[in-house]
Amino acid sequence: MTDSGTIVACCQIALQIGDRAGNHRKIHAAIGRAVDGGAKVIVLPELANTGYMFSSLDELRALAEPLDGPTITAWHGLAVQHQVIIVGGFAEKGDDGNVYNSAVIVDETGLRATHRKAHLWDTEKNGLFTAGSDSPPVIDTAVGRLGLLICYDLEFPEWVRSVAEAGAVLLCAPVNWPLYPRPAGERPGEIVRAQAAAGGNRIFVAVADRAGAERGQEWVGGSVIIDADGYPATTLILDQEGIIYATLNLSDAQNKSISAGNDVHRDRRPELYS
Amino acid sequence: MTDSGTIVACCQIALQIGDRAGNHRKIHAAIGRAVDGGAKVIVLPELANTGYMFSSLDELRALAEPLDGPTITAWHGLAVQHQVIIVGGFAEKGDDGNVYNSAVIVDETGLRATHRKAHLWDTEKNGLFTAGSDSPPVIDTAVGRLGLLICYDLEFPEWVRSVAEAGAVLLCAPVNWPLYPRPAGERPGEIVRAQAAAGGNRIFVAVADRAGAERGQEWVGGSVIIDADGYPATTLILDQEGIIYATLNLSDAQNKSISAGNDVHRDRRPELYS
Repeated sequence: MTDSGTIVACCQIALQIGDRAGNHRKIHAAIGRAVDGGAKVIVLPELANTGYMFSSLDELRALAEPLDGPTITAWHGLAVQHQVIIVGGFAEKGDDGNVYNSAVIVDETGLRATHRKAHLWDTEKNGLFTAGSDSPPVIDTAVGRLGLLICYDLEFPEWVRSVAEAGAVLLCAPVNWPLYPRPAGERPGEIVRAQAAAGGNRIFVAVADRAGAERGQEWVGGSVIIDADGYPATTLILDQEGIIYATLNLSDAQNKSISAGNDVHRDRRPELYS
Repeated sequence: MTDSGTIVACCQIALQIGDRAGNHRKIHAAIGRAVDGGAKVIVLPELANTGYMFSSLDELRALAEPLDGPTITAWHGLAVQHQVIIVGGFAEKGDDGNVYNSAVIVDETGLRATHRKAHLWDTEKNGLFTAGSDSPPVIDTAVGRLGLLICYDLEFPEWVRSVAEAGAVLLCAPVNWPLYPRPAGERPGEIVRAQAAAGGNRIFVAVADRAGAERGQEWVGGSVIIDADGYPATTLILDQEGIIYATLNLSDAQNKSISAGNDVHRDRRPELYS
């Protein structure tokens, strides 16, 4: 955390299912560009090593990797080389034989945190992924305290609250937001809810989404970096590849005050919430 | 609930503190216009009988009324006369000698529900109002199951969740949203969070806010009716007096499905939320 702020980048990439080498090259290039842009925290999409639209568990298993597999090893190498924090999603082959929709935080010291998505989306439940059941990680890093959730996890305010109450100043969220119709002129609802997650907890939120289409599934392309007041700190680049950057004074999120008499966390009355 | 939908109206009124008779005339006129517009549910702002910017507890006490006082009696009379549901906020003189920031639902059968704001805002805590500690009401009405929260209550997703899980299809929220600066082109954060409350629970939300200024305090003028997908069903009329209307198929909110495999309530994993 520096007085001049921390540059956070979210990489909105078009991935191709099954093309592990091609996806890796794309990610490697995006991380390089984000580093050139001065980023200290670089967020990648969900399932960035594999793509998303699996046709079978066999296909998924063939692409999934353990935590010490080539994807996370490469991300760690890049974190060391560039002295940055990399956050990204990948298909994890668990020691228990299950496959998880997971994400990691790596920095120059190694693998810092891992999270297995606890709220699975639609076809992920159809014999593909196993849901995680651990608390989301919240860890101290060189830039401040980071939290980590994956895509649909972010839609449960109770889950976000636990990350914020554990002291995260920046919640990183690799996502693959499938595109749904929305009224003309409206910002995608996923972004609206991420804004509410930020503003309602006075935390920064960095979302890295997909661009393009995969096996007929289009994505929102909703990558966004949101400030602790709940407003986007970047211009949206809906539905195209690119990297968004914001310079954030992350320690601002330690201040939960929203008026002389109000604090978004201390004002909670959990004894009333059944 | 009819096949053709229920017309909901939110009355965005400029009130004047202390001018009980003038405020009542304004409300009476707004209800009349909303009835002419076909509304079956009419939502009024928070503290509609008194205004908001009290300079002392003495001033507040002199304006507060019991539940069977002239304000709620008049609203019930209008509900009977027009066969509508009226939801609005008022300063309540409690039997216990305390003053509450309360709201009611009245229909042609009488007083149906009352709620005492549980999350007080800023100066409300400074020896003025006593916080309520009861669960928010959720009641069956002629148009469907209605919930009721007041202003800052709406900013606590855990509290909104309890209303939605109790089966409310329409959450009515009288508010007085004080105006804060926001980035150019951005929708007010209060509306964003109300959208998240709606979309995250697949419920309709009807917010009635103030317009104008009072003792130097300006208001957002953020009245909005939000559909169960979390998108505004009306054009916003920020910072001006007026009535907004939407025709809602309220029973749509009984369907919590957001994909073939997902349900916003059944997907919750409360055992993980600490």
